[in-house]
Amino acid sequence: MKNNKNSIITLLTDFGLDDPYVAAIKGIILEINPNAHIIDISHHIISHDIIEASFILMTSYSYFSSQSIHMVVVDPGVGSQRRPILIRTEKYFFIAPDNGVLSYPLARERLELVVEITNTSYFLEEMSSTFHGRDIFAPVAAWLSRGVAAQEFGPIIKDFQKIAFPLLKSLGNNQWEAEVLHVDKFGNIITNIDQKHWLQFQTESHTTSFTMQIGEIQITSLVKNYLEGKSQKLFVLFGSSNFLEISSYCQSAAQTIKAKRGDKIKITFI
Amino acid sequence: MKNNKNSIITLLTDFGLDDPYVAAIKGIILEINPNAHIIDISHHIISHDIIEASFILMTSYSYFSSQSIHMVVVDPGVGSQRRPILIRTEKYFFIAPDNGVLSYPLARERLELVVEITNTSYFLEEMSSTFHGRDIFAPVAAWLSRGVAAQEFGPIIKDFQKIAFPLLKSLGNNQWEAEVLHVDKFGNIITNIDQKHWLQFQTESHTTSFTMQIGEIQITSLVKNYLEGKSQKLFVLFGSSNFLEISSYCQSAAQTIKAKRGDKIKITFI
Amino acid sequence: MKNNKNSIITLLTDFGLDDPYVAAIKGIILEINPNAHIIDISHHIISHDIIEASFILMTSYSYFSSQSIHMVVVDPGVGSQRRPILIRTEKYFFIAPDNGVLSYPLARERLELVVEITNTSYFLEEMSSTFHGRDIFAPVAAWLSRGVAAQEFGPIIKDFQKIAFPLLKSLGNNQWEAEVLHVDKFGNIITNIDQKHWLQFQTESHTTSFTMQIGEIQITSLVKNYLEGKSQKLFVLFGSSNFLEISSYCQSAAQTIKAKRGDKIKITFI
Repeated sequence: MKNNKNSIITLLTDFGLDDPYVAAIKGIILEINPNAHIIDISHHIISHDIIEASFILMTSYSYFSSQSIHMVVVDPGVGSQRRPILIRTEKYFFIAPDNGVLSYPLARERLELVVEITNTSYFLEEMSSTFHGRDIFAPVAAWLSRGVAAQEFGPIIKDFQKIAFPLLKSLGNNQWEAEVLHVDKFGNIITNIDQKHWLQFQTESHTTSFTMQIGEIQITSLVKNYLEGKSQKLFVLFGSSNFLEISSYCQSAAQTIKAKRGDKIKITFI
Repeated sequence: MKNNKNSIITLLTDFGLDDPYVAAIKGIILEINPNAHIIDISHHIISHDIIEASFILMTSYSYFSSQSIHMVVVDPGVGSQRRPILIRTEKYFFIAPDNGVLSYPLARERLELVVEITNTSYFLEEMSSTFHGRDIFAPVAAWLSRGVAAQEFGPIIKDFQKIAFPLLKSLGNNQWEAEVLHVDKFGNIITNIDQKHWLQFQTESHTTSFTMQIGEIQITSLVKNYLEGKSQKLFVLFGSSNFLEISSYCQSAAQTIKAKRGDKIKITFI
Repeated sequence: MKNNKNSIITLLTDFGLDDPYVAAIKGIILEINPNAHIIDISHHIISHDIIEASFILMTSYSYFSSQSIHMVVVDPGVGSQRRPILIRTEKYFFIAPDNGVLSYPLARERLELVVEITNTSYFLEEMSSTFHGRDIFAPVAAWLSRGVAAQEFGPIIKDFQKIAFPLLKSLGNNQWEAEVLHVDKFGNIITNIDQKHWLQFQTESHTTSFTMQIGEIQITSLVKNYLEGKSQKLFVLFGSSNFLEISSYCQSAAQTIKAKRGDKIKITFI
């Protein structure tokens, strides 16, 4: 990548928008590359919640132009031995602490290079031990956006932390166990069932009729869009990330069900 | 409009900033037009609240440069038969679902063209039925910002949804009924009384002294700025959008009065 | 400063992100200077909280490029006699109401020029008396970013409002009284003790062992990073702004201690 006047650097952090942290990161990036195009993915990740960050990144990173740099700072181990890493895939760059936060998006990407960021000449001169987002990740992202090659930032490594994506479990007798990946602002409950799984369930069960059980609640209706489900209290549909979502028309399904990430869901095809 | 290196696209949604939705929209826009200048108006509209969105847009859109593109995604009917529309006025472009959300700003604009967005060649290839913000509105806004003519996106239409702006009611005897349009972050209660109405009240009543009743509370003081009202618990003044606001110095009038949108206000000139 | 295509204008306000206010400011700036690069520091300052705004600015402004324009609108006296001011330091420009909100950052800067903003030819034509952020500060920042000299905006003044930074008090017997400057999103309690003070305490006391008392709680452990403090419920470390912070590993120290700005802390070296 050459010096690109429209280099996109996306930011995903748990810093919130009340404190000076995000601004410091942006200031540093623009000092090094005034042409960087910084886009906030979110700064509202629950403090230290690596899994939530990984989900949000997985469902947003791929809409950005090729060569975009995705920088994630959700970093409970900051200042300790955990390593800062830079990953180049076929299409993107990722910069993050090596704590598994990149796992979900990386599972969808073709990896080309993993580098441990060690080259202090690209760090801020005055380093803190509590804010590597500002002191390491921001300047590295900015220099990368100016065309510095990934290998310049440190040695190539093979081992890095991974978090397993929650898998579906077959319970036999046309039953499967799924789980809640995320609850969004509208109260949609996003599950780990994608369209391919659903088709497989139908094929194996020789039926399209199902019951989905979450807590005390049973759902039996699959619709195409929210309005189509208006007459039911709760329904499922395939959402914008291709996962099955439990929803309610203009109401929060999550509030009705009191659902949260990790909650188990039993699907029975009948 | 030709390919404009500084094309402004404003975004107004009810997506919040915790989820991947806003980022996906920005990624898509910048992929199509890397020179688009994306400005967030707000993403904190109450879920599905078309009226709030219309108010926020009405009080912000006109501060942007001529030819700016205002894109609104508050869209409870997404995926159903409700149409996506593109409106060109003398000065701006608006892109939104056809659900009335553009009503308040459009009432202040000189309409030139209303188009139903149907030309799928400007949509994302993979379409969801729950996220037209990303799949239709974002790419259409981006192509429009690159200079594609409004008519290219679909047929011209005449009929589209409108929401009526809350009007003042004359109660006779120098009394009028107004209502609350919006409560802002400071607790200012913004009413639908503008400066012209106020002058008219004074002229018709042959007096400038008044009582304003909201709930159990009476207000009789009109001031020029917040500090001038410091000695009163509550006062009214003409705010930055030329509407009369019920306010309190460095305190939330809305909390004192427990006011919310739609609440009725009785004004008596005496 | 000449017309700079990458002029940075940072914004720090108490407007929140739900209302049209921030968007109006951005629209005005970009209308005047389409090349301005607007960066949000925060819009979540507690309404009218000048001290919080001053702290957030102090801990973020210096990460931006030389010649950046820092615009602050936390302005309880808007529309009254309080003056709008423009300050040029060796490295930056600051635009704000003259209410002391710039005090903390300015204490770290070399002042070159203080101007009372009076030249109405740089204001919006239609002025409100409640929103100088939009009508005065935004257009002045934009014209400044286009290269208009600071002196053009009004007369040079010498007197302007200052807020004193909270100082440490020596209590004798190797005891000092400090206070809480800020509580951040993670619940870190940031104190007004910097590294230099701490060294001085140690030198004067001939010891490095200490007890810190805040409310009913005692803390005796100083660590280098959060993970190192994992085994203790509470510890202190020097944070990213060089102030001593009371923290807890992956938990909110502020919630444990119920701390808030202004709370007193007693440090005893023993």
